[in-house]
Amino acid sequence: MPRLMGSALTAETGLIGRFRTLLGDDAVIVTAAEMEGFVEDFRGRYRGAALCVVHPSSTEQVAAVVRACAAQGVPMLAQGGNTSLCGGAVPAADGTPPVIISLARMRRIRRIDAANGSMEVEAGCVLETVQNAAAEVGRLYPVSLGAEGSCQIGGTLSTNAGGTSVLRYGNTRENVLGLEVVMADGTIWNGLRALRKDNTGIDLKQLFIGAEGTLGIVTAATLKLHPLPTHHALAWFAPTDPQAARQVLGLFQANCGARLTAFELMNARQLQLVVEHVTDRRQPLEGAHDWHVLVELADTQGAADMEAALQTTLEQAVEAGLVEDAIVASSDRQRAALWDIRHSVTEANKKAGVGLTTDCAVPVSAVPAFIEQATQAVRALDPQIDVVIVGHMGDGNIHFIPMYPFDVWRALADATATGAAMRRGVNDAAHALGGTFSAEHGIGQTGLPEMAHYKSGAELSIMRAVKAALDPRNLMNPGRLIPDPLH
Amino acid sequence: MPRLMGSALTAETGLIGRFRTLLGDDAVIVTAAEMEGFVEDFRGRYRGAALCVVHPSSTEQVAAVVRACAAQGVPMLAQGGNTSLCGGAVPAADGTPPVIISLARMRRIRRIDAANGSMEVEAGCVLETVQNAAAEVGRLYPVSLGAEGSCQIGGTLSTNAGGTSVLRYGNTRENVLGLEVVMADGTIWNGLRALRKDNTGIDLKQLFIGAEGTLGIVTAATLKLHPLPTHHALAWFAPTDPQAARQVLGLFQANCGARLTAFELMNARQLQLVVEHVTDRRQPLEGAHDWHVLVELADTQGAADMEAALQTTLEQAVEAGLVEDAIVASSDRQRAALWDIRHSVTEANKKAGVGLTTDCAVPVSAVPAFIEQATQAVRALDPQIDVVIVGHMGDGNIHFIPMYPFDVWRALADATATGAAMRRGVNDAAHALGGTFSAEHGIGQTGLPEMAHYKSGAELSIMRAVKAALDPRNLMNPGRLIPDPLH
Repeated sequence: MPRLMGSALTAETGLIGRFRTLLGDDAVIVTAAEMEGFVEDFRGRYRGAALCVVHPSSTEQVAAVVRACAAQGVPMLAQGGNTSLCGGAVPAADGTPPVIISLARMRRIRRIDAANGSMEVEAGCVLETVQNAAAEVGRLYPVSLGAEGSCQIGGTLSTNAGGTSVLRYGNTRENVLGLEVVMADGTIWNGLRALRKDNTGIDLKQLFIGAEGTLGIVTAATLKLHPLPTHHALAWFAPTDPQAARQVLGLFQANCGARLTAFELMNARQLQLVVEHVTDRRQPLEGAHDWHVLVELADTQGAADMEAALQTTLEQAVEAGLVEDAIVASSDRQRAALWDIRHSVTEANKKAGVGLTTDCAVPVSAVPAFIEQATQAVRALDPQIDVVIVGHMGDGNIHFIPMYPFDVWRALADATATGAAMRRGVNDAAHALGGTFSAEHGIGQTGLPEMAHYKSGAELSIMRAVKAALDPRNLMNPGRLIPDPLH
Repeated sequence: MPRLMGSALTAETGLIGRFRTLLGDDAVIVTAAEMEGFVEDFRGRYRGAALCVVHPSSTEQVAAVVRACAAQGVPMLAQGGNTSLCGGAVPAADGTPPVIISLARMRRIRRIDAANGSMEVEAGCVLETVQNAAAEVGRLYPVSLGAEGSCQIGGTLSTNAGGTSVLRYGNTRENVLGLEVVMADGTIWNGLRALRKDNTGIDLKQLFIGAEGTLGIVTAATLKLHPLPTHHALAWFAPTDPQAARQVLGLFQANCGARLTAFELMNARQLQLVVEHVTDRRQPLEGAHDWHVLVELADTQGAADMEAALQTTLEQAVEAGLVEDAIVASSDRQRAALWDIRHSVTEANKKAGVGLTTDCAVPVSAVPAFIEQATQAVRALDPQIDVVIVGHMGDGNIHFIPMYPFDVWRALADATATGAAMRRGVNDAAHALGGTFSAEHGIGQTGLPEMAHYKSGAELSIMRAVKAALDPRNLMNPGRLIPDPLH
């Protein structure tokens, strides 16, 4: 049975009937058991209630659902693969239970134009499906991240997903040419252009990318494809410290230009957790080193050239005293094994304890200072705290993770307050350096207090004005992204 | 003397006095003679009247000017280098004369962070100054276009300027990390972040990029810098036709990946006009060819590799029957001479006659069809019309230019109507192929009827809602970008 607010019972029952008429009975889910996977996030940290879950199969059906909700003033929450790390994809524990509009049945790849480097897909396509479809025509859709096997394109668009290819290809925002959006009143905006250049008025698609469903529901997109790099060269090295890592990044940028594709940093503690907690993961270098970097070059040809460039650059770095040790992957198998270490951090950290994941970015030049100052901040709160660091150093995006053993966490007097204080300490360090508290994860539920705390009044006012203009009754994913939207 | 509307005389005189107090006497221009360079565009095609021209030197002064105008309901027009090709930077011939807010005195480079690849500059900095300052620290600011010696950063941001580097580096939009904007009520929004990743709410800077000053006045920006390519390889070749040019583009993308920096197409007529009308320009290839392409690769190293890649790719193309003839530049001098041909088209076309410049983009795959269908459209109107074609083929952006000898143009019964019909024919051809009527020039005054004609009601409604939210009294550059903004 859906959870209903007593007084609204009749109207809401009417709404569910309307959905059944519009979409068919099998596309409307109302029982608690069936709604289970939609009202709780995949890590089991956020849980809310929904009026029902609907599964439209077309843009027109989404529009009809939105119109029906709007007519009764019922809030809506668009959901993709439900892989948000900050409670962005499930209803809040309080507030009016929304209609969850799942995009999962809208999963057609409508069109691929390899010559134009573009691809029109529906919002419910799984990211990996899109990557594979592009690769089949010799093209690359570059957005790549841990959840790519289950997250949906609509979700990656609404959160402007980052990942491990941002250094070279940019965030999701930079890989979108056009959007189709259902607005708060049910109007369909067709902005599915496949153009590299189009200067005709306000670039509306930018509003919906990263808006987390608060301004409208993305139903389809035209994505930008790139030439598919078929040759890769990868190295793992130990910089003497984060400052040295930054200098080596500079060497790679100078020597390898646009072929530089990844530059991922982790500290010794992060590597140790992966080796301890994930099967078949081994230390890549001999001896103990405080810091580790995975660096990758990619191109459409010239593997030998790239390996030579890697080798030369690392030799320069060793000579300059910036690097303690390094290996260059000599086979695809070795390359995959090194990437496996990087991709295992989430699994390892989940097994190792309670990690207070943060998602700061600072200017790349400020990464060493950020790591130092964030460490001081959390050690001031707890001198024993374990600090795990992993990040996309090339983008200045460092996941700084204070980590508690499970038993220590359980023994804390007020774990929630401790967690909030720790995160605030890390975020303050980033903010002081011109950085952000959310580089790629978005706001969801977790980030709302941080929005209110760090954003200027001017910035919040502009956001509220835009929100009020496009969703005047605050029905689209209310309680997300913008604090007090009707302020 | 400023042109004043009779009834508003006192209030407006008061406003000028207020500006003098705020900015100093030398920063307020009111005589017709001194305003001359601000009220007419550089080609002498658009002319309007202004209440006065003010020259604020700081963001706070801009904000004070905006507040003063807002208090009296006087419209404002922000002006940069006045190099718009569509009347975007000067007042309209009709309507209330605005206060022109020149950003020319705001020309400080506030900060360069080479390690972060970022640079904070004020809106009045000339584009070339910015390019040079970046190069001095070994970095590239990639936006490059004909007017770079006089256009200002604020103008390039407000129009999302394109140019010859878009293929590799994207438009201006993709090279901006942060903005500082004075809003319609005089509030200053400081969004000068220097971050590669920041997912904290609506990405407000996107609203102002390309908004042509209708939502606020950009006073400063944090620009994205890239590694400076120090090695270049360039070729000029004659593809058999546009379809062959498109296929050769595909070969270059496959063989040269991210090093491909320019792929510029022109027809024989365009080349002929350059050779005839500009001193020291010569045909680069022997014999007659219908189509010409300039292709350039650039990287931070490996000039020999790039020349080899150029050579190999062109040989493949010749073997496949796609290319009639080709030369690879063998020196920097030769390279510069070939670029000089490309950069001389505006001068040549100005001398050759009256060119009805258009600025369409279509999907790259549709460029051959666009050229064919646009040619049919204009020949249907005038079988004798001379067709000049030059464009950024790699972006699908083709400047298709019906060209009249001066005497023929003057003899036309209704030149304005003929020009409009010709342009509409070209734009229709682009629109039918999913293209746009303005790829990089923007809307200004010329494009407003096209906005009303081609944009969907849904799209215009969203733009109007955003405009009304941020500039409810329509005082920021009224009569631009959005038709009937208070509709």
